[in-house]
Amino acid sequence: MLRERWQQVPPGMRDLLPQEAAHTRAVTDGLLARMRRWGYREVVTPTLEYFDTLVRGEGTEAGDRLLKLVDRSGALLALRPDMTPSVARLVVTHLRTEPLPLRLAYAGQVFRGWESGAGRPREFAQVGCELIGPSTLEADAEIVALAADALASAGVADVSISLGHVGFLRGMLSEFGLPAEGEGDVRALLYQKDFVGLRALLERYGVPPPRADALVALPTLSGPDAIRAARRYVDTPESQRVLRDLEDLTGMLDAYGVGRAVRVDLSIIRDFEYYTGIVFEGHTTALGFPLLGGGRYDRLVERFGAPYPATGFAVRLDRVLAASGRADIPSGAPDVAVAFADGQRGQALRLAQALRGRELCVTVEILGRPWEEMARGAIAAGVSRVVLVAGATAVVREANGRERMVAVSDLLDAPGGAPWSS
Amino acid sequence: MLRERWQQVPPGMRDLLPQEAAHTRAVTDGLLARMRRWGYREVVTPTLEYFDTLVRGEGTEAGDRLLKLVDRSGALLALRPDMTPSVARLVVTHLRTEPLPLRLAYAGQVFRGWESGAGRPREFAQVGCELIGPSTLEADAEIVALAADALASAGVADVSISLGHVGFLRGMLSEFGLPAEGEGDVRALLYQKDFVGLRALLERYGVPPPRADALVALPTLSGPDAIRAARRYVDTPESQRVLRDLEDLTGMLDAYGVGRAVRVDLSIIRDFEYYTGIVFEGHTTALGFPLLGGGRYDRLVERFGAPYPATGFAVRLDRVLAASGRADIPSGAPDVAVAFADGQRGQALRLAQALRGRELCVTVEILGRPWEEMARGAIAAGVSRVVLVAGATAVVREANGRERMVAVSDLLDAPGGAPWSS
Repeated sequence: MLRERWQQVPPGMRDLLPQEAAHTRAVTDGLLARMRRWGYREVVTPTLEYFDTLVRGEGTEAGDRLLKLVDRSGALLALRPDMTPSVARLVVTHLRTEPLPLRLAYAGQVFRGWESGAGRPREFAQVGCELIGPSTLEADAEIVALAADALASAGVADVSISLGHVGFLRGMLSEFGLPAEGEGDVRALLYQKDFVGLRALLERYGVPPPRADALVALPTLSGPDAIRAARRYVDTPESQRVLRDLEDLTGMLDAYGVGRAVRVDLSIIRDFEYYTGIVFEGHTTALGFPLLGGGRYDRLVERFGAPYPATGFAVRLDRVLAASGRADIPSGAPDVAVAFADGQRGQALRLAQALRGRELCVTVEILGRPWEEMARGAIAAGVSRVVLVAGATAVVREANGRERMVAVSDLLDAPGGAPWSS
Repeated sequence: MLRERWQQVPPGMRDLLPQEAAHTRAVTDGLLARMRRWGYREVVTPTLEYFDTLVRGEGTEAGDRLLKLVDRSGALLALRPDMTPSVARLVVTHLRTEPLPLRLAYAGQVFRGWESGAGRPREFAQVGCELIGPSTLEADAEIVALAADALASAGVADVSISLGHVGFLRGMLSEFGLPAEGEGDVRALLYQKDFVGLRALLERYGVPPPRADALVALPTLSGPDAIRAARRYVDTPESQRVLRDLEDLTGMLDAYGVGRAVRVDLSIIRDFEYYTGIVFEGHTTALGFPLLGGGRYDRLVERFGAPYPATGFAVRLDRVLAASGRADIPSGAPDVAVAFADGQRGQALRLAQALRGRELCVTVEILGRPWEEMARGAIAAGVSRVVLVAGATAVVREANGRERMVAVSDLLDAPGGAPWSS
């Protein structure tokens, strides 16, 4: 059937049906609760910001890639592509007087105007954390450890964290003497892992082969020997400092008990330009994409007016859902469906409310169908028990078809639904 | 201090700071959980829809009032002003084969491009329910009773429900023989409660005084005598049917135990044109605005391709927050702050994780401040207990300043945090 456009969602956007929506909410709440245990308090920012706010946060080139609109007053607004600039703005506007460090969390929808290819979402949900104030590796260690803990708490198995540093690539590129545009192209090709294109570009810019080799070797600089190998390729004061930081951070993460899940990967390139220090991604063996990403951004809050270094990460909820088990997600069918004989509506409604008060999901028959039809339909739809209220007694039918008579007063009074279990 | 625009949120939009965000999340989750108990399963739709989808749902005149944008492909998208058309689209697209009735819930941000005046939000959160399939008053009764139950479960005291019907006003207006534009103007003036303007308009259209009187009397047709009074003003077959439905519905709501909270109010005019039957609003004595609104919309799902009657409501989360008690909202300060002596980081981190596993919120000192400074700061910020891990023992300081020594192993092993309470 050819569908009309008004029946469809725009490309890159999705509906979540009950089971997926329940899973999404459970994982969102679970992640926020876990972050809360580490002292991270949720904040909420508007879905729309001034275009100027987002460009100030994300950098000028991000402006082209935002979903923008003009409101009735003529103001240019845009949908946030991530939350970090909004949280930075919120901190400067509202939390300047709070003692540092600030530990903040968020959950919300983000929008990517520039995405289009198959399967690339233009709207998705993120849950994340920001640790604002300290510029230390101690703070980075807490954020990386919390990232690993949060993924594990969401049911993701075999979590691994790749740990890089924007300073390493920056240090390499600074020695190449490329124009700014050339640097951008190099980053883009590295991000796309297009090494043939990369070699051609470096040749065009006259980068000497040993240096070009080092850059093309970047993706190989990961795993246990990454730091040692990196020292063979580059040896500048900046690269030395970066590698020392990564070694120290790895040591701290051992103390957090997540050292074994962490591996250095100097090829990590993140999608926002505000990162200034360590960057990291969270993976699971089951999925080819990172489930979360983050890093240090020491200049971003300053752009909004407070000189606060910061570090943080954001979880891609859609990918966590794809990676986490669904065993504990309920089917969505009610626990009990209640029907009633003529004149028994009030009694049936009271029973339904009493059962809801005992944490059961209960529907009441509103179609007026005959008992047999209603009971069969409910059980076929996955309802565990069907109840027909008829005066002082009720018929209870189990999913297996077994029926018994129970006094309605017993059903109303029983704590914890005891009469169900007989 | 004059702020730059990039430091601000756009007019009509808001940041939620930790306490308000925690309250918002607790109320949202509580409402969804309550709806779940009644068998309503959450679904999620995209924040952006095709403009065509929303106009199809909300009616052509709504098109001017949406926040619209053009994406890279040239498609015209818009931010949803409410969720009901999106849920209708979702049902037709994905849930056509499910047995009716469908009980669905949602929670999300909605956007009102046309709002501007002081205090009128252009973005706010809604939590709502749709009962799709039956066209009966039974279904309306369930939705109205759930609305009252949901508000009460969110901590709103003195909930009252005003119950009207779009057919009553429609019946009156059909007798006036106004052009379509005139009807729209009449509705707008009634919505704004501008009775001087209304009288002038009716005179201009040559509506005879007795009929004009009846229309201006509409807002007085509320409360226990509303139905009797209404019969004095209008007596058409449609008005008779409407008033009988309201009487029957009120009777059913008695069976739900919410009859005393319900009063008939024939002056209710809702802000979307898709309503076809009963309409209602939820109030509390503490607040001058409705906390929720809803009603029957029998033609909306059909516009997307399935002839399903439906009824539902949406809760304005900001207003529920304003009306509900905040007594149980935690301050946001952690329960425990852990510091450590030199070389004790690993021990301190293990303790923190163990306490988090017991549902406590725990921060670890990452600033490296001296114990005394850190402890005073934490207690000033509202932390209940501060712990200094020093080898096999720890110093525990209570908020009242009292200190004691505890073996770290006791803190690690104790179930339910027993050593805290000594």
